[in-house]
Amino acid sequence: MPELKGLMMLKYYHAEPLANSLKSMLPLKEKGLAYESIYVDLHKFEQHSDWFVAINPEGQVPVLDHDGTIITHTTVINEYLEDVFPDAQPASGPLRPRDAVGAARMRYWNKFVDEHVMNFVSMHGWHRLVRVIASSIEDGQFEELMSHVPLPDQKKKWETARSGFAQKDLDHATDKIVYALDKIEQHLGENAYLAGETYSLADINFYSHCGLMVDRMFPDMKVNETRPNIVRWRDAVSARPAVQEALQSEDRTAPGLRTWSGAGTEHS
Amino acid sequence: MPELKGLMMLKYYHAEPLANSLKSMLPLKEKGLAYESIYVDLHKFEQHSDWFVAINPEGQVPVLDHDGTIITHTTVINEYLEDVFPDAQPASGPLRPRDAVGAARMRYWNKFVDEHVMNFVSMHGWHRLVRVIASSIEDGQFEELMSHVPLPDQKKKWETARSGFAQKDLDHATDKIVYALDKIEQHLGENAYLAGETYSLADINFYSHCGLMVDRMFPDMKVNETRPNIVRWRDAVSARPAVQEALQSEDRTAPGLRTWSGAGTEHS
Repeated sequence: MPELKGLMMLKYYHAEPLANSLKSMLPLKEKGLAYESIYVDLHKFEQHSDWFVAINPEGQVPVLDHDGTIITHTTVINEYLEDVFPDAQPASGPLRPRDAVGAARMRYWNKFVDEHVMNFVSMHGWHRLVRVIASSIEDGQFEELMSHVPLPDQKKKWETARSGFAQKDLDHATDKIVYALDKIEQHLGENAYLAGETYSLADINFYSHCGLMVDRMFPDMKVNETRPNIVRWRDAVSARPAVQEALQSEDRTAPGLRTWSGAGTEHS
Repeated sequence: MPELKGLMMLKYYHAEPLANSLKSMLPLKEKGLAYESIYVDLHKFEQHSDWFVAINPEGQVPVLDHDGTIITHTTVINEYLEDVFPDAQPASGPLRPRDAVGAARMRYWNKFVDEHVMNFVSMHGWHRLVRVIASSIEDGQFEELMSHVPLPDQKKKWETARSGFAQKDLDHATDKIVYALDKIEQHLGENAYLAGETYSLADINFYSHCGLMVDRMFPDMKVNETRPNIVRWRDAVSARPAVQEALQSEDRTAPGLRTWSGAGTEHS
């Protein structure tokens, strides 16, 4: 059984179950693939440690190791899992539609989330969570930590988190999120899911980066009161057993900082 | 012959053969697909006209119309063409590698170009070309034109082009391009093409958005003198008959503004 052999050799390096780390964990669970879960502790900067950078030179989670082949970037990982394990799929159907038009719709929305949602929610998450961590580090130690960050953009993001994001940039990020919510609310008024009638990688993408925590992170947007289609969609995604299981994964974020992370954990 | 029927029904709406418009024209030509070419005149703002927005509500070129199904965004269009016409391929091999690891490598580089190259070269192109056009328009007429731009980000880009991009943003864009050139120069020292040993959609992406015109746009970067791997790769791509043919497409850009557009057209 060569496929079973393949299944035994999947390792998934990830952090808390939200954003990127959740985004590739969900297909693994939805497809029922056996994998070794390796928690990378961002609170200890393990993603910049020598052992991890030897695996992913970009120093970022998550990473999929399939029989020694390293695949990075969640949108790429998730298409890879469809290419390698096309027949492993949830009862709701394939996570990448089999028809070309459906696959194109899925990719349109994946691209929209990757380019117009992810970084903007992330900025608010960093502003609330990483800023607190980054500004609690002593000067010399901070520079030492930064010397291990491989990506220049990522180093800049850390430095900005420490000094504080500009209000203009935070406001722009908020505008982008509101625009995305408007667009998706309208789309989900005409479609059950983002790519059409079935749950796909596009839903997993928007859920992991925004849908899961948007109401918790941005209570002023009143998503629960004003976006019935998104709420209906979010509740359908949240009710999936694979999603429930993923959200129970390890979370070492300090409870007081769980605005962004944490499966439904409230401040109180 | 149902496939021939499919082939007869492809329409490609595009502008000058560079950047996005070139990026999906190349696979059409490489794959030898018959299609109807429809030139959209950006100099007359046709992309924001009622007839075009009825086809693509985002008001952007290019667009693929396949038997009435509209596909937008070049990375999505190009994967769609692989899904629908897998057997139409150049002699060099499929434009999307058939093995899952090769496809993942292709998608990694596509994503890199989409997110870390395209917008930054585009900003310099707009700074040099669109700024001249946008600032020559009378106030009232400019607002009228802007009222037809569907995407808020695109409207902002037009307004910024008119008032002038900030030097800080142009410098950041330059830094991003230099970073990409460094990364790709190193990668092409170990690989014939971006996704590995064969020419793929990733090469088409980087060539269309940067490789084709980087030396012409940024002579100070001295690509020809300092990046032998990129030069070797660029010359191999430029020599392809499909590329040569695409670069002969209609170009209505005023000759004096062809720093960015124009197949090898020099200032002089």
